[in-house]
Amino acid sequence: MMKKIVILGSTGSIGANTLDIVAKFPDHFSVLGLTAGTNDQKLEEQILTFQPKLVALASDTAAQRLRARLGNHSVDILSGVEGLCAVAGLTESDLVISAIVGGAGLMPTMAALQAGRPVALANKEPMVMAGQLMQEEACKRHNRIFPIDSEHSAIFQSMEGHRKDDVRRIILTASGGPFWEWSHDQLTHASPKEALQHPNWDMGAKITIDSATLMNKGLEVIEARWLFDMPPTHIDVLIHRESIIHSLVEYCDGSVMAQLGLPDMRTPISYALAYPKRVPLYPNSLNLAQIGALTFFQPDWERFPCPRLAYEALEQGGGTPAVLNAANEVAVKAFLDGTLPFLDIAHIIQETLNGYQPLPMTSIGDALEIDRWARERAATLTMA
Amino acid sequence: MMKKIVILGSTGSIGANTLDIVAKFPDHFSVLGLTAGTNDQKLEEQILTFQPKLVALASDTAAQRLRARLGNHSVDILSGVEGLCAVAGLTESDLVISAIVGGAGLMPTMAALQAGRPVALANKEPMVMAGQLMQEEACKRHNRIFPIDSEHSAIFQSMEGHRKDDVRRIILTASGGPFWEWSHDQLTHASPKEALQHPNWDMGAKITIDSATLMNKGLEVIEARWLFDMPPTHIDVLIHRESIIHSLVEYCDGSVMAQLGLPDMRTPISYALAYPKRVPLYPNSLNLAQIGALTFFQPDWERFPCPRLAYEALEQGGGTPAVLNAANEVAVKAFLDGTLPFLDIAHIIQETLNGYQPLPMTSIGDALEIDRWARERAATLTMA
Repeated sequence: MMKKIVILGSTGSIGANTLDIVAKFPDHFSVLGLTAGTNDQKLEEQILTFQPKLVALASDTAAQRLRARLGNHSVDILSGVEGLCAVAGLTESDLVISAIVGGAGLMPTMAALQAGRPVALANKEPMVMAGQLMQEEACKRHNRIFPIDSEHSAIFQSMEGHRKDDVRRIILTASGGPFWEWSHDQLTHASPKEALQHPNWDMGAKITIDSATLMNKGLEVIEARWLFDMPPTHIDVLIHRESIIHSLVEYCDGSVMAQLGLPDMRTPISYALAYPKRVPLYPNSLNLAQIGALTFFQPDWERFPCPRLAYEALEQGGGTPAVLNAANEVAVKAFLDGTLPFLDIAHIIQETLNGYQPLPMTSIGDALEIDRWARERAATLTMA
Repeated sequence: MMKKIVILGSTGSIGANTLDIVAKFPDHFSVLGLTAGTNDQKLEEQILTFQPKLVALASDTAAQRLRARLGNHSVDILSGVEGLCAVAGLTESDLVISAIVGGAGLMPTMAALQAGRPVALANKEPMVMAGQLMQEEACKRHNRIFPIDSEHSAIFQSMEGHRKDDVRRIILTASGGPFWEWSHDQLTHASPKEALQHPNWDMGAKITIDSATLMNKGLEVIEARWLFDMPPTHIDVLIHRESIIHSLVEYCDGSVMAQLGLPDMRTPISYALAYPKRVPLYPNSLNLAQIGALTFFQPDWERFPCPRLAYEALEQGGGTPAVLNAANEVAVKAFLDGTLPFLDIAHIIQETLNGYQPLPMTSIGDALEIDRWARERAATLTMA
């Protein structure tokens, strides 16, 4: 059966990888809709190759440029958040790939869920900001949210065919990022350039910095909490430098199921696309004898306090994880801009959390309000 | 639902472990039948504790002793191969645990399959001797054969919830046994006592020697070939000294699923017992950070030729794997008795195989005939 795919964030790294897989298996997948932020040039190439029915750009001016160039093409070109949401909500789609970087993905992803479309999540921020609301929306429509993040895909695959009731613990693996072996003193001088050198994965800038602070793992704990309906006390983090075991699930009888593989985002992307089948990507076989050893360490929340903040935010509940997420985005941007020292990323987040009065979060409107508040607050703190 | 269990070989290591689990979960399991070889004393204790309906001892004299002692007990006590087969074929059973050491398990296990009873296999020899016949028998009755061997349980668990059509390769892990780091010269002097020191698992003598020669892995390749209907070219062996990853399954999209755990036979036994559920054994959690590293090596079929002989026997097909198995049992016994040097185990097997004219094997009678021929031949060679 041909699956009709919508990709939110098609010009980013995950979007491009997804389209590579679609191109490789034209009998399995077709592209129904695409969205991008401002990159009308790359979106134009994708339109000409994949012939979607509807596209949208977040930027109105980028959309105008594209309309001018594609006047005779049959594709409809929308713009703004409403445009992104319209593409996300296309009722003919079989799967919506949610791959918009950061909190901007929340509204379109929610639009897909409200339209009852199965969603594959590559960006973790929507779940961090409003995981409970998203799962409630999915539940109401007997719909499912699939993970694309390699760790969550590993957990998902390690739970397929096994009973959730028997799960004792989820173990998220973390590479430890480029600074795992750095001392606190060294970390005070860590530069954006150094932070962007991830040992195993080639990813976008935001997520690579999140790997360096280990906040990425904190956000993943929050994502796992909602994706798998698992209390945070049952979600552990394990440092695994080689990024070969992508995560593990321990069961009540002592069995631990795990998914392994060479670091290659096409594997979890294609799994989400083809589920419950797999497509024959036939990448290089994992050769463990050649790799020689897989190593494991306890995480260190003293040198890397961000994941601890994430656990605490989960415990507080309500809008607190959304505050954490927004403050992190602001702080990471300031670090990348060279205006904030590396170790102050955690301080900004902590300070922003300290100033937040937890309120219940009952709608996406609440989540966006909290997000806005936290961004302003974090920005003020960053400039202080 | 209460599962009624029959255990073939209840006084051995797997049998005793199985009964421990039954005792721990009396709401889940009850014992319907038990069989043993000669140990009437231990069987008597098990009868008094678990109250089976029917038992059998392979030895007539042991059965007579037991009958004399249990005259007033309601249990029926049979003997001989027919007795074992009668217990195996009890039609009220929900699962037959096949845990008789060596080729002696073939007839009773086949009797269970002929009675349409689901079988959980702890002894690999029946599959090695007559895997195709057993699977045909199971297939005919829409019946299933479950693995208990830790490696095959790992493969089984790594395939649950995933499509067999998508499997690219099965990877059996091997500890390498006590002699993995020994040179050829050192191996010429290896004693039974040294061979019985397994680094990770506490098992019976026969299987521990098979671990030292790595023939255990050869037999497992043959077992996996039939259990999972997988061509031998798609079954690999990987040395993994720590015995934490019990085996792996690679899929066509690059995903590798694996089952891990501390070496504890209760995990695979309880999985076979409770399938598709698990029982809350809650053993010590696997702490990978404490273990530190998992290491992997290519196998070496020069120093350890037995697995290569197994691959070759599989390729020849028909009765050849049964010849391999019988010759191995004879040679291992001679080694344990101190009458055969360690390295001659492989030589005896090779010589026995050399003298065999492959014939099709169409019945258990054929398998037993071949087994008898190979044992005689191997015994003659051993004494030469």
